[in-house]
Amino acid sequence: MPEPLIECVPNFSEGRRQEVIDQIVAAITAVPGVLLLGVDADADHHRSVVTFAGPPEAVLEGALRGIAAAQRLINLDEHRGQHPRIGAADVVPFVPLRDATLEQCVALAHRLGQRVGAELGLPVYLYEAAATRPERVNLADVRRGEYEGLKQSLGRDPARDPDYGPARLTPAGAVAIGARQPLVAYNVYLNTGDVAIARKIARAIRHSSGGLRYVKAIGLLVNGRAQVSINMTDVRSTPLQRVFELIKAEAARYGCTPTESEIVGFVPEDALLEVAEHYLQLNRFDRSRILERRLRELEAARQRGAAE
Amino acid sequence: MPEPLIECVPNFSEGRRQEVIDQIVAAITAVPGVLLLGVDADADHHRSVVTFAGPPEAVLEGALRGIAAAQRLINLDEHRGQHPRIGAADVVPFVPLRDATLEQCVALAHRLGQRVGAELGLPVYLYEAAATRPERVNLADVRRGEYEGLKQSLGRDPARDPDYGPARLTPAGAVAIGARQPLVAYNVYLNTGDVAIARKIARAIRHSSGGLRYVKAIGLLVNGRAQVSINMTDVRSTPLQRVFELIKAEAARYGCTPTESEIVGFVPEDALLEVAEHYLQLNRFDRSRILERRLRELEAARQRGAAE
Repeated sequence: MPEPLIECVPNFSEGRRQEVIDQIVAAITAVPGVLLLGVDADADHHRSVVTFAGPPEAVLEGALRGIAAAQRLINLDEHRGQHPRIGAADVVPFVPLRDATLEQCVALAHRLGQRVGAELGLPVYLYEAAATRPERVNLADVRRGEYEGLKQSLGRDPARDPDYGPARLTPAGAVAIGARQPLVAYNVYLNTGDVAIARKIARAIRHSSGGLRYVKAIGLLVNGRAQVSINMTDVRSTPLQRVFELIKAEAARYGCTPTESEIVGFVPEDALLEVAEHYLQLNRFDRSRILERRLRELEAARQRGAAE
Repeated sequence: MPEPLIECVPNFSEGRRQEVIDQIVAAITAVPGVLLLGVDADADHHRSVVTFAGPPEAVLEGALRGIAAAQRLINLDEHRGQHPRIGAADVVPFVPLRDATLEQCVALAHRLGQRVGAELGLPVYLYEAAATRPERVNLADVRRGEYEGLKQSLGRDPARDPDYGPARLTPAGAVAIGARQPLVAYNVYLNTGDVAIARKIARAIRHSSGGLRYVKAIGLLVNGRAQVSINMTDVRSTPLQRVFELIKAEAARYGCTPTESEIVGFVPEDALLEVAEHYLQLNRFDRSRILERRLRELEAARQRGAAE
């Protein structure tokens, strides 16, 4: 059995001070076996997304050290950004990549939650597949009221009691730890500075208010431009082009149009191939007809043959 | 220095008798080192495209054996298809893949031409980068009049004298052997049975009559459907979506629209990513943000590090 490869995509509430981001990333990558895929810092969101992968134990240790560094370096009382957040290390999801299951990620989330509560003294909420209560499955519900709201209710409202750690907030806030399938973070910019339009479009396309099944969306104002900020939770069932075309159609109603879009973090190759096939009407395309893919397959098969 | 990887994409004038196609492919793949990427048989074109790759000597030998098998098994006097052709083994291009140059492919084309002329007794025309005369650079010029026309003029018209082999035609016809950059064969079907419309569109989009720089195109009737059949000779400079959109625009003039499109043979991954980026307006996309690509890079780097 090959060793499972787990991805971890912690979001930290720091997108402006490069030295802070660097220290957090250094803490994570100091763990042997951790592969750093990338770092996305967003000054407007005042938030960074770190993507790393590795075998389960390495990823667990890397996540813990990243959270500890963020706790040391980030003060939520001084943090203002475009993106909702409850903590310095705001969200820490585990994702199954190769030879890994969602169940293994749930187990990791529990182990990390327990250690973050006990060793770092931070309140931990488990979400998505790792959630212990139905009302905590959805991250937006866990994050409701953000850091400031949580400060008011933690210790008073038993519904906000954490899964691990103390019911008491420090300036590092709380941590949402979860397990989920791969997610694509996708933003579409509009040719307007009117955030109300982005919010209306977000409402129209997202599942929670009647839109597409695997879409979460909010409207933001980023650098003076209205942005529909989307999390796609199952890009096979709800593909990128369907979301993009629906945004385009909704935007037209307000006389607006997308100026460009962006992927935050990583995207599976097949999600982009699906887009190309859609627009070119390549309706019977066989993806093994991609030259590099076919060559890799043949060369791997030959190597296996040579090794036998 | 890693060994060069050369691709060879011979087109054979047989798209209906599976046992003939199988024998040709078996002759090619009997050569050690040959990797068979794929076989595309098209009954309407009455033509098969075999794609294989390997180190230069293996590819040369595989091509020679494929041509010899086609010579033995295909009679051009009995061949009728939608696609222009001059021989049983009609076109044999060499293409540089990894760590290979076009110059190496030109040298291979000459060596193969020499052997096909001398050992198999077939007339050989060198085309594209391997051409010895400017009027033979373009494959369409080499193939003008097809097998039947060549039969009339060979031995009479010195302009048709082959580069290698006798100026005399057998029922296996002649072979065009060349060297070129990777090519994408791309067909677009229209919702009409009127081939005249496909021909008008082909004329509008192809370079030779005022269209896009790296596009060759003809209009065909395939299975009762009008088809624009395209060879894209530099898919980086003239990308797929530009060709598709231009076809769509030209088709609209006749009240027509594409029903679907298809890739024949292989397509480089980047050509499809370019399409996805275009339509989603991913104008600042970094392709190292494709999850599988990034993981492959990191794992390869780790393996190199471990080996040092």
